[in-house]
Amino acid sequence: MKNVVVRNIPRAAPEHIAELVRAGTATVHEAIGRNGLMQPYLRPIHTGAAATGSAVTVLAQPGDNWMLHVAVEVCRPGDILVVACTAPSTDGMFGDLLATSLVAHGVTGLVIDASCRDVATLRQMGFPVWSKAISARGTVKATLGAVNVPVVCAGALVNPGDVIVADEDGVVVVPCADAASAVEATHARLQREEANRKRLASGELGLDLYNMRDALEAAGLTYVEHA
Amino acid sequence: MKNVVVRNIPRAAPEHIAELVRAGTATVHEAIGRNGLMQPYLRPIHTGAAATGSAVTVLAQPGDNWMLHVAVEVCRPGDILVVACTAPSTDGMFGDLLATSLVAHGVTGLVIDASCRDVATLRQMGFPVWSKAISARGTVKATLGAVNVPVVCAGALVNPGDVIVADEDGVVVVPCADAASAVEATHARLQREEANRKRLASGELGLDLYNMRDALEAAGLTYVEHA
Amino acid sequence: MKNVVVRNIPRAAPEHIAELVRAGTATVHEAIGRNGLMQPYLRPIHTGAAATGSAVTVLAQPGDNWMLHVAVEVCRPGDILVVACTAPSTDGMFGDLLATSLVAHGVTGLVIDASCRDVATLRQMGFPVWSKAISARGTVKATLGAVNVPVVCAGALVNPGDVIVADEDGVVVVPCADAASAVEATHARLQREEANRKRLASGELGLDLYNMRDALEAAGLTYVEHA
Amino acid sequence: MKNVVVRNIPRAAPEHIAELVRAGTATVHEAIGRNGLMQPYLRPIHTGAAATGSAVTVLAQPGDNWMLHVAVEVCRPGDILVVACTAPSTDGMFGDLLATSLVAHGVTGLVIDASCRDVATLRQMGFPVWSKAISARGTVKATLGAVNVPVVCAGALVNPGDVIVADEDGVVVVPCADAASAVEATHARLQREEANRKRLASGELGLDLYNMRDALEAAGLTYVEHA
Amino acid sequence: MKNVVVRNIPRAAPEHIAELVRAGTATVHEAIGRNGLMQPYLRPIHTGAAATGSAVTVLAQPGDNWMLHVAVEVCRPGDILVVACTAPSTDGMFGDLLATSLVAHGVTGLVIDASCRDVATLRQMGFPVWSKAISARGTVKATLGAVNVPVVCAGALVNPGDVIVADEDGVVVVPCADAASAVEATHARLQREEANRKRLASGELGLDLYNMRDALEAAGLTYVEHA
Amino acid sequence: MKNVVVRNIPRAAPEHIAELVRAGTATVHEAIGRNGLMQPYLRPIHTGAAATGSAVTVLAQPGDNWMLHVAVEVCRPGDILVVACTAPSTDGMFGDLLATSLVAHGVTGLVIDASCRDVATLRQMGFPVWSKAISARGTVKATLGAVNVPVVCAGALVNPGDVIVADEDGVVVVPCADAASAVEATHARLQREEANRKRLASGELGLDLYNMRDALEAAGLTYVEHA
Repeated sequence: MKNVVVRNIPRAAPEHIAELVRAGTATVHEAIGRNGLMQPYLRPIHTGAAATGSAVTVLAQPGDNWMLHVAVEVCRPGDILVVACTAPSTDGMFGDLLATSLVAHGVTGLVIDASCRDVATLRQMGFPVWSKAISARGTVKATLGAVNVPVVCAGALVNPGDVIVADEDGVVVVPCADAASAVEATHARLQREEANRKRLASGELGLDLYNMRDALEAAGLTYVEHA
Repeated sequence: MKNVVVRNIPRAAPEHIAELVRAGTATVHEAIGRNGLMQPYLRPIHTGAAATGSAVTVLAQPGDNWMLHVAVEVCRPGDILVVACTAPSTDGMFGDLLATSLVAHGVTGLVIDASCRDVATLRQMGFPVWSKAISARGTVKATLGAVNVPVVCAGALVNPGDVIVADEDGVVVVPCADAASAVEATHARLQREEANRKRLASGELGLDLYNMRDALEAAGLTYVEHA
Repeated sequence: MKNVVVRNIPRAAPEHIAELVRAGTATVHEAIGRNGLMQPYLRPIHTGAAATGSAVTVLAQPGDNWMLHVAVEVCRPGDILVVACTAPSTDGMFGDLLATSLVAHGVTGLVIDASCRDVATLRQMGFPVWSKAISARGTVKATLGAVNVPVVCAGALVNPGDVIVADEDGVVVVPCADAASAVEATHARLQREEANRKRLASGELGLDLYNMRDALEAAGLTYVEHA
Repeated sequence: MKNVVVRNIPRAAPEHIAELVRAGTATVHEAIGRNGLMQPYLRPIHTGAAATGSAVTVLAQPGDNWMLHVAVEVCRPGDILVVACTAPSTDGMFGDLLATSLVAHGVTGLVIDASCRDVATLRQMGFPVWSKAISARGTVKATLGAVNVPVVCAGALVNPGDVIVADEDGVVVVPCADAASAVEATHARLQREEANRKRLASGELGLDLYNMRDALEAAGLTYVEHA
Repeated sequence: MKNVVVRNIPRAAPEHIAELVRAGTATVHEAIGRNGLMQPYLRPIHTGAAATGSAVTVLAQPGDNWMLHVAVEVCRPGDILVVACTAPSTDGMFGDLLATSLVAHGVTGLVIDASCRDVATLRQMGFPVWSKAISARGTVKATLGAVNVPVVCAGALVNPGDVIVADEDGVVVVPCADAASAVEATHARLQREEANRKRLASGELGLDLYNMRDALEAAGLTYVEHA
Repeated sequence: MKNVVVRNIPRAAPEHIAELVRAGTATVHEAIGRNGLMQPYLRPIHTGAAATGSAVTVLAQPGDNWMLHVAVEVCRPGDILVVACTAPSTDGMFGDLLATSLVAHGVTGLVIDASCRDVATLRQMGFPVWSKAISARGTVKATLGAVNVPVVCAGALVNPGDVIVADEDGVVVVPCADAASAVEATHARLQREEANRKRLASGELGLDLYNMRDALEAAGLTYVEHA
């Protein structure tokens, strides 16, 4: 890895970013072709958490949060910090002081493929974090990494400036260039779902609503009575 | 596996089913001889969740929720859906649309050896789910499974119609034919526990309450002072 | 292992114990040189949990809670129970009856490298527990262990009488003899952090506050523009 | 659980049992409809291991191998021992002395949802074991379980007398009553595979051999050149 | 994901590919700046396995190996197949028939973020596989994926045509365009290591060979006698 | 943690150390009261591995092997290196160069709660290693740790100079002061086992050899015929 900090990154239009988090990760993930989802071991530390933003990416040595301090300087309001490690770690690489600094610079949240700490204070601050675990374990500041390079975080490729959408269902990555079309696809999907929800609530079966009966029969499904 | 849907299943008496969830999984599990408990990796997605019902079982291909749609049709009010996979999966095979459909048919909850999504909406709906994880990952509808066949779910054997009792301590399976005797055993156990709780709250030691001192001494336990 | 119960253990001064939990595990862990932290798989069963006390240690056979009953007798008000197993276990070795007994004797909480159950009742009681999992699985009372011997719990060495500090960030062990100096180091750290928090909240960068720029440049960090 | 030992169990015809292990677990598992496979965390302790037999089942308390000693008495030559635990365990519940006893009674191998030990000696003896882990950790003999009751072992239901087929690919359970038809289905499958192997070895593509091209195109697969 | 097959991919020079596997994954990974290593849960199924080649990538639905059959057609001699799944899977998605087909087309090995089966036959064939697990569990052919698109496999980004180097230490990905410089850096590193090996074998300490003493002292390391 | 290197450590008598590895870990672990066993996730990298020695302990930052180089200087012939990390790591913190250095100083093996690499070369060298995983991932040399302080390694407490016994069944720690009595207890146990092995090989049941029938009946075990 080259130990670089990339200063200027592309960012999607703010109105697209805002639309995507309203739709929610499950809908966005479906709308963009079931792509870009991080592994489900990343969990929000607070009930009801939701955040979105342009990804400022960090690649850090496990147990070393030096590059997080470096990254703050290149964050802009509306960004979200995405931290990957060069090897798996459950160290508490992020706490309330770094959160205070990020809030001061308008950062909307943190996604970290490691742990965070000070979660009670973070909850009071209303700062959302998605992490692999929670751990009081402190970190050193000894080894360089990189900021705003492409990273693999929790199994998903993240390029700097990609739109991150995160809520209680997980974290999804929308490529920066696809934000506009993702919003459109999301709208279409939400409308379809709303119509379907009403019919399902009235008792109509998904078997009929989605016209599944013929395909099921063709595939060989049979119905029998209990012995 | 035969790709069948079994239409009619035995069900325990509703009053027995209701009694068991009042007792709670820990008590029921003890009362039926420490049997039938699913692995603790199944967790409720909401604090305070509790549900019970007659098991409608689903065996699904990982990442494919076709058979869940099929299962809705054979559910009756008071049933609970139990979903096992043919191989381990953390895909989000269940969300708010399927929950809307289940609620419309009187189903009381879901136990799934995979993930669910739309958890914020499910919380608003008050629909309880026990799952292995939470994931926005969507699923296909391509491969048949079976409905109302015996399944192994999270390490426990579930026959269609077995009584499922689920709360914050886990999920326990009571064979349909044993529901009445389980209620009886549960009552006896709850009375004993209530009496013991009072004596323990007054400061009486479990060592004395349960007459453990002789057995401990016979087994060789010795008491020493700190060096 | 010798099957012994050690009756009298050293204990730190109550005012030191109380100070440490106010500081929180992350601060205490840092203040004592990044030592003594249990693995992060131990989690509190309730949001907002915090506890402290002198460790009464238990070494138990997996799936057997006999020695927990033995341990209650040697607990004093202000103690916290720390349970290690001779082999990994996720059994529910602790529930509301044992909690009732511990509360009656002034015990402040439980740290267990296994599972607990009756978590809804424990929440109503306000009794804090840190455990590896939650499980309704019951236990036997058949095999001896030991009480108040040194144990390894969730990866950390605990000697009887060590100060346990536990909150939402994890569980940290402070050697009994180091409690006074730990309090002092914690105070110094908290003051430093409070000053830093204000400067970070005002927008000052950690890069400047902690004088990192020279070291980063010396280590070879370079800044580039996005291609 | 009832603490019983069931003395006489049904057994499949020896020639069927022998045929199935020759076919191998992957073929048998396919031939019986992709059923009955234990989770892949069960691994043989020796390269090249393969075994088959009628299942004598044991349900044991974790860390307690008392019931394994009980089970030896009801084993017959050609049986294989299948050990499930009431809760997850990695204790070394089986070693060379028990293996010596099993060999003396004609038992062909061991499948255990826990650990074994003395693996160097077991290799010299040529006694095959499939286990979750290898551990020197010893066990107690304090709590009853059951012998020859239905058990869930590594995620699969095993009834006493079911045919167990185990090799380097895993462990599969064939219901006793299905042994004859399983042999037949296995033969048909092996013949088909042998024919296919020759055509594939000659360079013919699976796409053509299995006539996949039309279905792929219908499903929407498109071919493009690299940008 | 778009369901595409990309027919022509870039490939590095064969002599570079051959050089890299001779150096071994540990050396290559260091030589390219500690990049590109897959997670260590991928293990070779045979002792002594080593392979290299140009990556033909597959993105498959878990439990569905349809796209592996598709991929064979676009493989060229000297390629290595790299299979990622859209969600975690331990199914046995690859066996001896597919291996026979790959061998017929000159493919050098398989890296799969799932399981393989028929490992005894694969060993006889001398076909190397790196997988997450070994499992007899069979798969369906029902859902499209993609061939020769960028994939994240076991935590590492793989572009079609990247050089894969795999041995008993793991699997490393060298970007196609970096193959020549990687060979050069590898040579330099191997020469340095060879010189160091001789000096270390003669008893010289790494502390002296690498001039560590001053830096250790400056960092604060102190030497004491045992109490 | 204090960043110290302790130069002189106690060591057990060489003849006791040699005796213990001949007995094997399973026997030693039993002979010393089922104590001191590391978790079974530590595995030897080579079939047939066995080693023993006096523990030189290392506490290292994850992903940083600086302290291993420091430790070599204080090793004496017959020592074994035991490496714990301050947080979980799967990095390849040890390879053939460090092994060459250890061999030059008479060190008998390595136990590391992290990964090693160059395993093919280590096998050729005949240098035994017990590790959590195998990984080509390289490490930095940036942060101090400690040498010859008490450490918790894979769940077991190790004091410098303790006797480490390691083989295919795992790794056991015998306190230095207990080496002589451990040898004695091991001899007694081996003799008993040898006598029992002969009787079991002749077909005598463990039920009779160990006089279990009365205790089993008293505990309530019943025998029934298959329905």
